[in-house]
Amino acid sequence: MEKDHKNIVVIGGGTGTFTVLSGLKNFSVNLSAIVTMADDGGSSGVLRDEYGVLPPGDIRRALVALSGSDKALRDLFAYRFRSGSLSGHSFGNIFLSALEKTTGSFSMAVKKAQEVLNVQGRVVPVTLSKTRLFAELANGEIIKGETNIDIPKHDPRLKIKKVSLMPPAKANPDAVEVLKEADLIVIGPGDLYTSIVPNLLVDGIPGAIKKSKAIKVYIVNLMTKYGETNGFGADNFVNVIEGYLGKNVVNYFVMNDRKPAEDLVEFYKKKDKARFVEPAHGDKRYVQANLLAQSELIRHDENKIAQLLLSFL
Amino acid sequence: MEKDHKNIVVIGGGTGTFTVLSGLKNFSVNLSAIVTMADDGGSSGVLRDEYGVLPPGDIRRALVALSGSDKALRDLFAYRFRSGSLSGHSFGNIFLSALEKTTGSFSMAVKKAQEVLNVQGRVVPVTLSKTRLFAELANGEIIKGETNIDIPKHDPRLKIKKVSLMPPAKANPDAVEVLKEADLIVIGPGDLYTSIVPNLLVDGIPGAIKKSKAIKVYIVNLMTKYGETNGFGADNFVNVIEGYLGKNVVNYFVMNDRKPAEDLVEFYKKKDKARFVEPAHGDKRYVQANLLAQSELIRHDENKIAQLLLSFL
Repeated sequence: MEKDHKNIVVIGGGTGTFTVLSGLKNFSVNLSAIVTMADDGGSSGVLRDEYGVLPPGDIRRALVALSGSDKALRDLFAYRFRSGSLSGHSFGNIFLSALEKTTGSFSMAVKKAQEVLNVQGRVVPVTLSKTRLFAELANGEIIKGETNIDIPKHDPRLKIKKVSLMPPAKANPDAVEVLKEADLIVIGPGDLYTSIVPNLLVDGIPGAIKKSKAIKVYIVNLMTKYGETNGFGADNFVNVIEGYLGKNVVNYFVMNDRKPAEDLVEFYKKKDKARFVEPAHGDKRYVQANLLAQSELIRHDENKIAQLLLSFL
Repeated sequence: MEKDHKNIVVIGGGTGTFTVLSGLKNFSVNLSAIVTMADDGGSSGVLRDEYGVLPPGDIRRALVALSGSDKALRDLFAYRFRSGSLSGHSFGNIFLSALEKTTGSFSMAVKKAQEVLNVQGRVVPVTLSKTRLFAELANGEIIKGETNIDIPKHDPRLKIKKVSLMPPAKANPDAVEVLKEADLIVIGPGDLYTSIVPNLLVDGIPGAIKKSKAIKVYIVNLMTKYGETNGFGADNFVNVIEGYLGKNVVNYFVMNDRKPAEDLVEFYKKKDKARFVEPAHGDKRYVQANLLAQSELIRHDENKIAQLLLSFL
């Protein structure tokens, strides 16, 4: 950690956090990623069920994003077996789970993986508690498990009323520490109820964010997610975050104001029932900008995001 | 590679080679391990069948033996999953197979693994050809596959007449190169027909050994193996090696002359039908010494072996 560099903490999980980390790592800042531990689907879910380990998937993505190793090693960690007895497992997940078994702690496993991948910064699990994500829908129905919320087995038209962790999870002391030392805290982007809010459900995390003297920024998603954020505009995202974190904690809400090409929007609508998130107006904390990447997909541009975030410092 | 250090090449596979490498790595020498690629049982066999990769098991053991990394990383590579969908796989095997997939070559995978494990020396697959070991028994029966010879499904009282590789395998050019530069070549110890001789069946390897100006040493096993070397004395081992490598190629045949404790010998006899290998006499190339480790198992002492080997230089 360089003393004269600013400390930036990114909170989230999944590809949104990967984008923000990838953009920021090209600048002279001290980067930490606080990562959700609520994943229980796919390879992470299998490893969790079969070996009693903590879910490695989101941690792996953050490690790869911050890796200073050559492409061969980063490719290896992201590699997913597509057949045979290892089918569905990503190598990085197996790596972290085997390390948790041999070192006896997930925390040690992540630290060791940071060494191997020559991580420029720190990757911190938000909690070391074994916990599950639950969602209560508008009709009172309770959904158990991140994967059942993420890939909705429930009626996807029903709004999510509330999410919670059971059993309750305690903040990883390392997460509290990096939040305390932060100059800038970046929340999101990412799946609202399954990647972002689960971090804010961990006992001690909202308090540590509030107490921190850092500038706090939330990055609104580009597109809605069917079953999670149907019909959301940017202001709906803001309201949910403020609901879990408290009013007036976040200093800036960053939202994209450039609509993607019509055919791309149509493609997302047909394929995933996802819609463009309309930017909101009328609050001086709202920051609009063109954040779109030149891409076949609707994605944040990592460099535009990074430049904008650094302008807050 | 240090210019003023002697070049020692160890040929084999399995725990015997692990012992020799572990002993020699404490001395100032340039170490290379040439490792059999005929394994087709256990975790290596499954990965080979399911992913079409080369068998990683023997390479992994040699990498761990020569690793300069801390215990956490060496433990990780040797770790074996004992339940669930990854049951039976060693982590190091999965690592090498995933790397072979992402880098596109087993050779690159081994080189990358050497970096990660900070290997002091070189680990070289004897061949990069995909091949199988076949054995012809005294009664003419043909056994296919290293694992079926190693864990005999054949009548274990029948002598092995001959082993061969099908399809024929070509020497890895890296193996030929290290043999050429060697000052000392150490063959064995290890399972005669399943770990040691398979190296000598690779086209180009016996020739490279013969042509090398190195001093050549073969280390005779401590115990016989039921189904492979029933009733063998040291001279039988010598004869088999000379049968595959040629007469008068090996300069010294190293054999242990200290019989283990009677109860330990009895235990091996009952458990594995293994017997003590009696040292041979009458050839000035035979070198007898007490090579036994102080152990609950009948094992070569890595330090005694290393000291003796260095005395030949």
